[in-house]
Amino acid sequence: MTPQPNPQVGAAVKAADRAHVFHSWSAQELIDPPAIAGAEGSRFWDYEGNRYLDFTSGLVYTNIGYQHPKVVAAIQEQAATMTTFAPAYAVEARSEAARLIAERTPGDLDKIFFTNGGADAVEHAVRMARLHTGRPKVLSAYRSYHGGTEQAVNITGDPRRWASDSGSAGVVRFWAPFLYRSRFYAENERQECERALRHLEDTIAFEGPQTVAAIILETIPGTAGIMVPPPGYLAGVREICDRHGIVFILDEVMAGFGRTGEWFAVDHFEGVVPDLMTFAKGVNSGYVPLGGVAISAAVAETFARRPYPGGLTYSGHPLACGAAVATIRVMEEEGIVEQAARLGAEVIGPGLAELAERHPSVGEVRGVGMFWALELVRNKETREPLVPYNATGEANAPMAAFGAAAKKRGLWPFINMNRTHVVPPCNITDAEAKEGLAALDEALTEADAYVS
Amino acid sequence: MTPQPNPQVGAAVKAADRAHVFHSWSAQELIDPPAIAGAEGSRFWDYEGNRYLDFTSGLVYTNIGYQHPKVVAAIQEQAATMTTFAPAYAVEARSEAARLIAERTPGDLDKIFFTNGGADAVEHAVRMARLHTGRPKVLSAYRSYHGGTEQAVNITGDPRRWASDSGSAGVVRFWAPFLYRSRFYAENERQECERALRHLEDTIAFEGPQTVAAIILETIPGTAGIMVPPPGYLAGVREICDRHGIVFILDEVMAGFGRTGEWFAVDHFEGVVPDLMTFAKGVNSGYVPLGGVAISAAVAETFARRPYPGGLTYSGHPLACGAAVATIRVMEEEGIVEQAARLGAEVIGPGLAELAERHPSVGEVRGVGMFWALELVRNKETREPLVPYNATGEANAPMAAFGAAAKKRGLWPFINMNRTHVVPPCNITDAEAKEGLAALDEALTEADAYVS
Ligand SMILES: Cc1ncc(COP(=O)(O)O)c(C=O)c1O
Ligand SMILES: Cc1ncc(COP(=O)(O)O)c(C=O)c1O
Repeated sequence: MTPQPNPQVGAAVKAADRAHVFHSWSAQELIDPPAIAGAEGSRFWDYEGNRYLDFTSGLVYTNIGYQHPKVVAAIQEQAATMTTFAPAYAVEARSEAARLIAERTPGDLDKIFFTNGGADAVEHAVRMARLHTGRPKVLSAYRSYHGGTEQAVNITGDPRRWASDSGSAGVVRFWAPFLYRSRFYAENERQECERALRHLEDTIAFEGPQTVAAIILETIPGTAGIMVPPPGYLAGVREICDRHGIVFILDEVMAGFGRTGEWFAVDHFEGVVPDLMTFAKGVNSGYVPLGGVAISAAVAETFARRPYPGGLTYSGHPLACGAAVATIRVMEEEGIVEQAARLGAEVIGPGLAELAERHPSVGEVRGVGMFWALELVRNKETREPLVPYNATGEANAPMAAFGAAAKKRGLWPFINMNRTHVVPPCNITDAEAKEGLAALDEALTEADAYVS
Repeated sequence: MTPQPNPQVGAAVKAADRAHVFHSWSAQELIDPPAIAGAEGSRFWDYEGNRYLDFTSGLVYTNIGYQHPKVVAAIQEQAATMTTFAPAYAVEARSEAARLIAERTPGDLDKIFFTNGGADAVEHAVRMARLHTGRPKVLSAYRSYHGGTEQAVNITGDPRRWASDSGSAGVVRFWAPFLYRSRFYAENERQECERALRHLEDTIAFEGPQTVAAIILETIPGTAGIMVPPPGYLAGVREICDRHGIVFILDEVMAGFGRTGEWFAVDHFEGVVPDLMTFAKGVNSGYVPLGGVAISAAVAETFARRPYPGGLTYSGHPLACGAAVATIRVMEEEGIVEQAARLGAEVIGPGLAELAERHPSVGEVRGVGMFWALELVRNKETREPLVPYNATGEANAPMAAFGAAAKKRGLWPFINMNRTHVVPPCNITDAEAKEGLAALDEALTEADAYVS
């Protein structure tokens, strides 16, 4: 448990990494991946004995923290019983995981197609929508992330798409509501909501409703900045979809499974049920790779007597499903979803609001549950971001300084462009939350230095 | 170990499956997934107490059989130590898996980008090739399978592509050598090889060499029929790629990690080293979802100081990598690669040749190691397939009868169109191999009834 410094092993791990591991989203020679020795609960540590409080949940996926003993035991038990079995069979862990997930998904999202992660969940949801409607186009938001495979990254709004975007055949992007940086010259949430819906209507009208298979949205956009949609927006999108026979896909890969203080983020928006909902990450806290699509009765019906043309070797992998069963049970037993809601409402939310008041670099705080973003700015009036969009190197120095300051204080922060996200495991203690807020407080002083 | 019949549990597992699990590649109401209670070594059993000898290795991935005790123990140990950690860090299991894989891959394929399975490995290999060359097109073979996500299925040759094929922008298909059904009017292997290479050259010349980023081939096409390429073909493709600056991708998702009696199928072809090689399945026998791309020095150099624009949450997942480390060690210690080679050369190969002689329905036997296909035909002279290409329902009755007969004799066969593949775990015993051959012998008698 207590980290034993062991720099020699650390050096060997690092050397093999540098020699042989090709890392995601990186220029391989310009990175220096920290060697991590262990992790437990909300903490991890390196080989030098430095411990960090994890305000990232990895990539926002360890919703129950690291090494939860009950889930580790369940994985060990599942490994002993049935580690793997091919997808064309009924096996207990798969059946039970599907049942437990379907019990929690809203409305009639009762059939579960399992994938290995978030990107392939999105790939398959989009295929289902295209075949269900017989239409080609998918509408997605500019401020979004939907995964790294070709189709998923082309649907994505963020700059990680650019290198693979050969002109977006079949994808049309639009602007979702975001009052703090309104593209609709709105002055309040109601206006932002109305105008964003009108913009979406206009886009569909000019694209041709008959050509639009699906609208895909993150229920609450995550990596792009945790923008909780204004009341009425998602209901409005649902109504537009219904009117035009468009499939409504909600991507809950990041926001699902407790992150927002509900089982799914869509549960915050009464009466809204998508036709397809993607999930991954929190479903088993990422202990074993797993993702999937929850499918409505209507879409499932399309593939009742006609084959669904998609699949993968590890669809419904027993070890991954066993981990999901255990995770969902633990979340239920330990009230982790409720804990996320309470911590967000009583500790993290108020704590961040208080930081925003004191720090000139904090332009806005927004979020819910254990899903928060701080927008760092050079100036609260102009809202000029602390660093430019997609900045690297020198231009990114202020955010780098902020990050280094946080780490020095034992807090590992999540940083994306000019934002820091506060996304710890959903079951941290009040004391840990306060400890993290105190470290953030100090690190923000570094950011304040760039305010003009 | 011994299957305990437990039909009640089986019924519950089946009921939850039918209510909630959406299955790959299937019309959901036309399937009846068998409920499987357990699996060990080369056998699995249902809840009625029926045991089957598995000649499928799942979907050709349990190369070390089910529940290998050492790998199960290693997964349990890895779960106890570090179940998961995000990809941007150096962690021991990830470093060690990359090192062990790079040690075994041919030539300078020394950097490993980890994915969750085969399809995303192909997606990323194709992206790397396009960005490395700055060219748009990928050439792939008609008889091929490369995965179920959008890009991977569009590169795929087989009919599972059709439903998602919107015209194949960026993909050009060609014919690879296959003497038994030669598209080149060839009379022998040498001629087939020469003509297939000329066809590929012609295709490139008329597509425009400057537009071709990559040629992707399964080293030995698997699902499409286990066609071992003639001597000289892959070396010829390598030479063509070199001449035109095209990236050569070999897909070893199915053929890799011992399946053919070598670590990689390409090891059968001296001097041939691809620029990128995809793997999954056998890398950890599918015990935990894992795939990846092995990357040459030249391609890695492209992303040395410029970011590779791709990634995924579970890249290099510790539990999956820990299983790979254990699997590779077990394969080494127990000589499983050598066992596959010997069983193929001494038991399975000769046994299948003998069946082909006696059964009029067996048109051809081909393969190597533990990777064999029997081409079932209505007539050995005309080579008319026992069932038409992509047959379903009544048209597929002869293959269905063959399959049912095998299962009745305790053998679970792999069936694709008019072929049965003999692809058991690589470490079955000689006795199991012979038992399976005897059951095949009886089942082929059913197929013989359709010969005319
Ligand atoms: C909303 C959303 N969708 C999809 C993905 C892709 O998931 P994965 O990285 O597992 O492919 C992510 C990953 O962060 C995500 O946040
Ligand atoms: C050669 C080949 N490539 C890719 C794949 C796709 O792998 P996965 O099903 O893990 O996505 C397969 C699967 O059978 C395969 O055989």
